[in-house]
Amino acid sequence: MSIPKRGFEVSEYENRLNNIQKHMFESKMDAILLTTQVDIEYYTGFKSQFFQSPTRPWYVLIPGNGKPKAIIPTIGESGMRGTWIDDIQTWTSPNPEDDGISLLLQTIKSLMSKHKCLGVPKTLESTLRMPLDDYEYLIKSLVGIEIKDANKILRKVRFVKSPSEIAKIRHICQITSQGFIDLEGFLSAGDSEQENCRRFKQHLLSLGVDDSPYIVSGSGKDGYGSIIMGPTDKLIEEGDLFIIDTGSVFDSYYCDFDRNYAFGHISEESKSAYRVAFDATEAGFKAAQVGNTTSDIFNAMNDVLQKGGALGSTVGRLGHGLGMQLTEWPSNTASDNTVLEPGVVLTLEPGMEFLPGKEMVHEENIVITDDGPEWLSIRAAEELPIIQ
Amino acid sequence: MSIPKRGFEVSEYENRLNNIQKHMFESKMDAILLTTQVDIEYYTGFKSQFFQSPTRPWYVLIPGNGKPKAIIPTIGESGMRGTWIDDIQTWTSPNPEDDGISLLLQTIKSLMSKHKCLGVPKTLESTLRMPLDDYEYLIKSLVGIEIKDANKILRKVRFVKSPSEIAKIRHICQITSQGFIDLEGFLSAGDSEQENCRRFKQHLLSLGVDDSPYIVSGSGKDGYGSIIMGPTDKLIEEGDLFIIDTGSVFDSYYCDFDRNYAFGHISEESKSAYRVAFDATEAGFKAAQVGNTTSDIFNAMNDVLQKGGALGSTVGRLGHGLGMQLTEWPSNTASDNTVLEPGVVLTLEPGMEFLPGKEMVHEENIVITDDGPEWLSIRAAEELPIIQ
Repeated sequence: MSIPKRGFEVSEYENRLNNIQKHMFESKMDAILLTTQVDIEYYTGFKSQFFQSPTRPWYVLIPGNGKPKAIIPTIGESGMRGTWIDDIQTWTSPNPEDDGISLLLQTIKSLMSKHKCLGVPKTLESTLRMPLDDYEYLIKSLVGIEIKDANKILRKVRFVKSPSEIAKIRHICQITSQGFIDLEGFLSAGDSEQENCRRFKQHLLSLGVDDSPYIVSGSGKDGYGSIIMGPTDKLIEEGDLFIIDTGSVFDSYYCDFDRNYAFGHISEESKSAYRVAFDATEAGFKAAQVGNTTSDIFNAMNDVLQKGGALGSTVGRLGHGLGMQLTEWPSNTASDNTVLEPGVVLTLEPGMEFLPGKEMVHEENIVITDDGPEWLSIRAAEELPIIQ
Repeated sequence: MSIPKRGFEVSEYENRLNNIQKHMFESKMDAILLTTQVDIEYYTGFKSQFFQSPTRPWYVLIPGNGKPKAIIPTIGESGMRGTWIDDIQTWTSPNPEDDGISLLLQTIKSLMSKHKCLGVPKTLESTLRMPLDDYEYLIKSLVGIEIKDANKILRKVRFVKSPSEIAKIRHICQITSQGFIDLEGFLSAGDSEQENCRRFKQHLLSLGVDDSPYIVSGSGKDGYGSIIMGPTDKLIEEGDLFIIDTGSVFDSYYCDFDRNYAFGHISEESKSAYRVAFDATEAGFKAAQVGNTTSDIFNAMNDVLQKGGALGSTVGRLGHGLGMQLTEWPSNTASDNTVLEPGVVLTLEPGMEFLPGKEMVHEENIVITDDGPEWLSIRAAEELPIIQ
């Protein structure tokens, strides 16, 4: 398995910038304010784990013309100088008196030339990563400037992945699939969810993932009650159904899929629910054609689940977008109706309650192409694997 | 090394709630709105990696009296039912039409009885984890309700750690210290920063950390230029100074410290800078007494650095608070002036540029007690370790 080159050519960033600036022109925005790790990395290539520290705000402005402008703490200056960005202003942070906000305000003002409009991500799935007081001060100081939601156009650009992005996602999906295949040999009843997950994480690191920041598991007799809580110190017992769901990362790109295992023996209901979820994934895959919508995928999967005896679901959707975040837009729901394009990466995630309090959830990752959908993860086994 | 019990007794949550409600009473707040993973976990015990998915908002309200109230996506209901919280309202998320906001609004209104005041974290180091449009709709709909910053009183409560919290931080500091000691045997020139960090992460997992979400490294001849960017695929060479900084986690509590290593040989300037940073840490430790301030710690450390030839620093402070986040308030700066109390956990993090473009940064973790400061991490070697 050849490892994709890390990073991107400058042309990749130029394309992203051109794309967003076209949308900005149509939306009559003079600039967009970015504050989150992923938005900043997407447009600048600035890659740092340091966003885990909540102390300091980081700002990037995308102007209507020309390269993004960085306004960042001095601690990040040498790193930002290593990117394709030229215009870098810094301040010594943390500074409770003025944590970059006067620099930011002044730079925004200098860009409000044509439309008197600043774009800020404001709608579903967006977060403002800066103190709210500072944001309110900013808005109050931008007299005569209109604030518009920039989230929808930022989404449009990130929604379609480039060949280089898809190569990275395919790589992390393939490594992690291999990890799940190998996992069958490591798992054992009598160990805790935590021990099994730790072993899985260590193995994934040895296979070449940069990290597996998301490894969640659930287990219980014949089924689990949640797919977002564990791993706990609960010991896996014979007769348990056990799920591991993982978001592993290669060069800032995620996979997000899960695998189910039974231990020793398992009820016919669980085996049957596994097969229903497997078939629902197949149906979703067939519906994942250019020109179809996320709702077509949802309906195809949901039909199989309903006919297979679904009692309900707590997840709220049957899959979602994937890329630099564990979950991205769109959502596979009845009302989402996002039209599929070549280069869109999705998860197919059929899930259902099949006995009271017992869930079965499957997940695979795919990419949409002109020639139909393509599996990025190695397809799960057709029948529920039973660890002896 | 005995492993601390996971989770907390209910009395721990009751104490936290009593403490914040006392501050709310003094501040005349009827309720506080929490939206972030760490704030929600601190007051409810709801522990999930799922906050890595940016799709769904999560809300918890702390009323002036009685237990916190959860307003969360259905996907989290069974998990929240496992905590000490009783009042749990859910909605099927994601729902672009109304992603929990009408439920939240109605519940906030029901609590605005006495002071007509809602607390929201708004100041430095706080983030609002919900769509800005939804927040603005909420505020507009809360006619006659005052919004006050709740960040300062939330900080006051989390600032002083309980014995159970300190036990968890001590445990993760001790495991990680052992990892750094063992690392000397694993490191080798000719491997990349990434390979060395991957090996370190695998070893830390085998020693019992839950995860090491933050492992950053830098390297270069005689010194490094940044402490927040790597690891990169740069190969470590003889004559390099190499730093690894890590935030590892046990049961939601962090350590945050680093270690420096030289390979083969190193300049006298680097050895001397190491010794200066070591001595600065000693000076900071001695100043870390109950009744002293974070600025006393800063001044003690900064004196040593200045006398030792510091050319400057990009970090903006010489250490910070530590707990459920990699970095918490306060900051060891000239103007912070936070008074130290027993139970406060801090990092001592002296850093300086000692040659143009070459930095030396040390870090240790301590807890303040009535009998003076106590090391939580195992103290670094007095002289720069040289890997042969």
